[in-house]
Amino acid sequence: MSGPLAPRVVALGGGHGLSQALAAWRRITTELTAVVTVADDGGSSGRIRREMPVLPPGDLRMALAALAGPAARHQELAVLLQHRLGGWGALAGHPVGNLLLTGLMEVHGGDTCRALDVLGELVGACGRVLPMAEVPLDLVARVESVDPDDPRRSRTIRGQVAIASTPGRVRDIRVEPADPAVAPEVTDAIAAADVVTLGPGSWYTSVLPHLLVPQLHAALAATSARVVVVLNLVPQAGETDGFSPEQHLEVLSAHLDGVAVHAVVADEHSVVDRRGLLSAVRGYGAELILAPVAEPDGAPRHDPARLAAALAAVAGAR
Amino acid sequence: MSGPLAPRVVALGGGHGLSQALAAWRRITTELTAVVTVADDGGSSGRIRREMPVLPPGDLRMALAALAGPAARHQELAVLLQHRLGGWGALAGHPVGNLLLTGLMEVHGGDTCRALDVLGELVGACGRVLPMAEVPLDLVARVESVDPDDPRRSRTIRGQVAIASTPGRVRDIRVEPADPAVAPEVTDAIAAADVVTLGPGSWYTSVLPHLLVPQLHAALAATSARVVVVLNLVPQAGETDGFSPEQHLEVLSAHLDGVAVHAVVADEHSVVDRRGLLSAVRGYGAELILAPVAEPDGAPRHDPARLAAALAAVAGAR
Repeated sequence: MSGPLAPRVVALGGGHGLSQALAAWRRITTELTAVVTVADDGGSSGRIRREMPVLPPGDLRMALAALAGPAARHQELAVLLQHRLGGWGALAGHPVGNLLLTGLMEVHGGDTCRALDVLGELVGACGRVLPMAEVPLDLVARVESVDPDDPRRSRTIRGQVAIASTPGRVRDIRVEPADPAVAPEVTDAIAAADVVTLGPGSWYTSVLPHLLVPQLHAALAATSARVVVVLNLVPQAGETDGFSPEQHLEVLSAHLDGVAVHAVVADEHSVVDRRGLLSAVRGYGAELILAPVAEPDGAPRHDPARLAAALAAVAGAR
Repeated sequence: MSGPLAPRVVALGGGHGLSQALAAWRRITTELTAVVTVADDGGSSGRIRREMPVLPPGDLRMALAALAGPAARHQELAVLLQHRLGGWGALAGHPVGNLLLTGLMEVHGGDTCRALDVLGELVGACGRVLPMAEVPLDLVARVESVDPDDPRRSRTIRGQVAIASTPGRVRDIRVEPADPAVAPEVTDAIAAADVVTLGPGSWYTSVLPHLLVPQLHAALAATSARVVVVLNLVPQAGETDGFSPEQHLEVLSAHLDGVAVHAVVADEHSVVDRRGLLSAVRGYGAELILAPVAEPDGAPRHDPARLAAALAAVAGAR
């Protein structure tokens, strides 16, 4: 499907979860925009954002690699973007794409959208990658204590890596700065979209943050697009240990505040309590799409073709 | 000039001097191969070669940037390759192109020619860039003492940076390893060339090293190409202080050993002793081309259009 009939899709997220959503959506539409978290403070991205005033490039790079064109030279370039430098020094572990994108952001004077478009053109991207905010974000979470002897029931934890690695459930989360600038390209894409997806991905650090940015939240509340939540296949250690799909939705609904959810996509084999999930989804006034969207070999990953089939049904159901 | 009538040219050198030669040659021919020094151990290249087992990328990157195609996207990419990362950390000062090329060399398992061809294609290079050897080289020089009280008349200095920054004339120079592997693409290009140029550039660290590598020396001795030496405009501090053009040629001739030189290009305004230079050039049985090849504003740089005019005369004079 492409051309004027292709649905205009905006996929919100970050990390591997967003890559899975993009791998599915690119089978359905060419009118695809990824709006990517910029709150990572770990690994290569963390090193880069501590060294220079640019957006953490890691999630942006992954999204571009996921959208690289089918030509051999574009796929080879995607491999290069993802390749981590070796050796035994200061460069070891940096994905080449992070360094390339950092250089492009510097050359384009902080115009990240331009930098991303240049890199997108290089890899023949079948879609556009944009940052969820124009400045690096910090996540700040209250995390429940897992130690029954801890006199404090919860602790405030700052930073994506710290939140993901602190045992105990996240009780609430916010971003700093609280009202970051958002590129007009992002809000325009959401306003013009036919479908917006949230997830899959790390719930607190890749999915919810979009709802915490006021300008993004307002754009999501105002759009006439169908808003589709793609649930994770398994809970994530440190963030959503033991969370059922319904609990994922509960956490999400606490941040919706005027954003309508039209459909929820869940893997039919990952859901234990269908009735509970259906009740939660109906609580939104949304449709539940239970389909086999996981890899057939049982790996806890979405299968691009299967997820695409489920999303195509949602996208066509206008 | 291009197509089947374009002369097949191989330009040997490194650094800014080679970039000037390439900027001139690209006006004359599309059949252009740069064979670039891989002995740099300073700056970004030095940091990279100390961290991982790849060729120092700096001179290779500069040559690729000099050959970038005229299209806006290619020129923008050339700017990115040359852009040095900012910030206050471990990445500061690395040109993006060095990191990109390092990643490509790793991805292609040390097949540097392949890595360079991929990057050449990205920048729409109007020519091919190849390394003078398949392994990083170290330069080792005997440098004359400038201190009259120094009981040692000369000292052995190792490394391009150390040699260039040690006061006193270089007496002789060698490479380590003494007989490095050379890619067949390099020797094939020299064998098939109509014209081979040496220089301009740092005489001891960018021009002479090619003659010190046995496989390159043998290829230069065996080729039927016209061999053209392009002299520098000014002596280089620390390497060739106070050297006249004739002295540059003397140093070169000590390393020729069977390599014929057919022409010497010198800037007519930089030569003080025309008779001395002519005598030195005739000593090779070579032709002296005295032409205005420097920037008209008096800057000590070759002017691409003027140098191209002089080289076109040489290339046509078969």
